[in-house]
Formats: sequence, structure tokens, C-alpha cells
Amino acid sequence: MPASPEIDAPVAFADPAYREAVVDLLGVIAYGEISAFERLAEDAKLAPTLEDKLALASMAAAELHKVQALRDRITELGADPFAAMAPFRSAIDLFHAHTAPADWSEGLVKAYVGDGLANDFYREIAAYLDHDTRDLVVSSVDTESNSAFVVEAVREAIAADPRLAGRLALWGRRLMGEALIQAQQVAADRDALTALLAGGIDRPGLDLAAIGRMFTRLTDRHGERMAELGLAS
Amino acid sequence: MPASPEIDAPVAFADPAYREAVVDLLGVIAYGEISAFERLAEDAKLAPTLEDKLALASMAAAELHKVQALRDRITELGADPFAAMAPFRSAIDLFHAHTAPADWSEGLVKAYVGDGLANDFYREIAAYLDHDTRDLVVSSVDTESNSAFVVEAVREAIAADPRLAGRLALWGRRLMGEALIQAQQVAADRDALTALLAGGIDRPGLDLAAIGRMFTRLTDRHGERMAELGLAS
Repeated sequence: MPASPEIDAPVAFADPAYREAVVDLLGVIAYGEISAFERLAEDAKLAPTLEDKLALASMAAAELHKVQALRDRITELGADPFAAMAPFRSAIDLFHAHTAPADWSEGLVKAYVGDGLANDFYREIAAYLDHDTRDLVVSSVDTESNSAFVVEAVREAIAADPRLAGRLALWGRRLMGEALIQAQQVAADRDALTALLAGGIDRPGLDLAAIGRMFTRLTDRHGERMAELGLAS
Repeated sequence: MPASPEIDAPVAFADPAYREAVVDLLGVIAYGEISAFERLAEDAKLAPTLEDKLALASMAAAELHKVQALRDRITELGADPFAAMAPFRSAIDLFHAHTAPADWSEGLVKAYVGDGLANDFYREIAAYLDHDTRDLVVSSVDTESNSAFVVEAVREAIAADPRLAGRLALWGRRLMGEALIQAQQVAADRDALTALLAGGIDRPGLDLAAIGRMFTRLTDRHGERMAELGLAS
């Protein structure tokens, strides 16, 4: 993450475009979490044991737990939380439709790598926000609690069947590719959100070179997560 | 709920049958909550709006949130939590298989009435337990938080389509009937749990007349919940 500049909140929120962009950002994170809950709850059905099922279900519940603070903040900003989420449903639903895990190990990799990627992305954006919004975003995407379970389970699965490593490595690439496709779609549709990254009066932003560096950081972190699972990226 | 007698925990737990019965009870509650999570998450798919979906998903997450304390206590009692849950999976899974909601309104009634019935039952049993176990059971089944949402949604659905009231009243009876069938099965299979209700040395229990009064209380509370939803019982 880059060093966070200090954004003056009253000045920033005086700009309707900033407010709109923050509502967009909180809306997409909130819908992403509801959607992650649904998919993790669904993927938990693939669990080989009740203990495994409970572990993935707990990750699902943790995602949902963070929605309320986002809803409250969107309401405070004068917007309707469900209206704020609506523009992002199609992209996020498509991401999940195109990345439905075929089995338990794919579900685990998706839970770990997909969630990690989204969280890194939101943390990057948060660096360009006022302090309170940044804190809310960072606390909303903080879900490291169950990662040890996933890492261990994936490594065990590969140890039991080494051929799995090749398939799961490809699966990780596909998750990354689908995430980029849908992020691109959102960027094309939501001018306010894109403009947020470009900065504004009294508010620093990213030029193309900085955006390039951001994607390099995201790709590097994705590779690190894949390596933690024992997978090539 | 009857007045709670004071059970001396060290004396009670010195009886292996009491310990076994408590492990059984915590196991069935824990599996019931994992299972409720799964069903509520599944039934949330039937929601007509994203807001409705989030409300049911939040009830699902709340169920799961309470599993950890039960797991911890079962472990403290020297048993494996997942082994403790195993004997109850079939009865609870069958209950859900036989009561899959056909639509959103049936899902809401099940969430409210089914959950309420199970919780009343566990609270009744808790009255015959030592203080710490009683507190754990009571806090594990305390889920009144989302009931206002369900009551309002069911009443609105009936107002929009009054014929629904007849179908949902029958549905409530079916939920009660299936719950009794599965509870009967569990009672027949699990001697320790049944013996718990019969009492022991230094520990009061229920005679047949008292069990009859308990079922009357459960039926009365079921009728009250149905009435809150605007339904005959």
C-alpha cells in the first residue's frame, strides 16, 4: 500500500463527486460481502467433513458481519444502502457465476485468493480517502482470521494428490483473470469511482504510472498468496 | 419455564451419565445451529429483494456465531465436539429435508416458528442443568434480534394475499409435527439425554405429568408465535 496522504474530510465531502464515489465504494464492498457470504455458504456444501464445513461457514458469517457498518455509513452519507449496492450486483454476480468451484479444493482456493485480492484492491483505494472512510474500509476488509485453516487444508490436499497443484494453479490464474475483467467493467461504468483514483482539488490521485504500480503490487500479493498455498501463480 | 432448581455442578458432573447427557445436549444444539445456518442461507435465495435476503442471511450468521462457545465447552468436558454432534445429524437433517420451504413466506415462517420451538425446548431442558451449563444453553438459543423483521414481512405477505394465511397455518402445523417426530426419534436413541430429564441422585427430574405440562407450555408458545404472525395454530 502507498503512503496515505491526509485528506481533509469536510473539504473532500463538499465535493459531490467525492461523496458519490465514497457511496459507490462502500456499496460495492457491501454487496461484495453479501455475495461472498452467499458463495461461501454454498461452497461449504462441498466440505468433506462437518469440521471443514463449519470453517467455511464461519468465513461466510464473518463476511456478513461487516455489512452493517457499511450500511450505516452509506445512510449517514444520505444515500440508500441497497440503491448504492445495485449498480455492482451484475459484475459481482458474474464473477461468481464464472468462478463456481468444481470441488472443495477449488472452493478453498477461491475463498483465500479471491477474498485476498478484493481486500488488497479496496485497501489500495482506501489510501486515497479521508481518514474515517479509510478506517471503515480497512476494517471492513480485514478477514485474516481463517486463513491458516485454508492454507493447511490446501497444502494437505496437494500432498495427498500432487496432480492437484497444476489444476489449482490454473484455477488461481482464472480467478485473477475474472476479477480483472469484472473490475474493468465496473471502472468503465462508474465514472465517480474511477475519478476518485484520479484525485481532485486538494486531493492527490493516481496517474497512469501509479495505477500501473498499483496493479504490480496487487499481482505480487496474489503471487505471494498462491505461494503460501503451495501453488505457482 | 419452570422454576430452576439449584444443581450442584461438581456433584452432578461426578455422575458420568450427567456429563454424557450434557455433551449430548450441547452437541445437538451445536449441530442444530450449523444446520440452521445452512438452511437459512439456502432459504435466503428465495428472498424477493436484496434487503430481505440480507435479513435472512443475518439470521443465518447469528446462528453460526453461537457454535464456538458450545464447541469450547464440549472440549472442556473431555469430548470431541464433532463426535458429540454426529448422533444428531440424521434427525436434524431429516427435519430440514421434510420441511424445505416452497417459497419465501414459508421460509420466513420456518425461520421464526422452527427456531422459536427449538429454543423453547432447549430452555425447558436447561432448567434441569447446573448453573453454568444452563447459562450457556440459554445464551446459545437467544435469537430474538431479527424476529420483528419476520413478523412484519409475514403480516405484509398475508395482507397482500389473504389466501396465504390458510396455507401458512397448515405449514406451521407441519413444522410442529416434524419437530415432534424428530425429537421423539432422538429421545428413543439417546438414553443419557432422556435420563437427564428423569433426574438422578441429588438432581430433580420430570415425572410423566411434568413432561406433559412441558409439552403444553411448548404448544402454547408455538400458538403464541403463530398468532404473532397473524396465523391460526
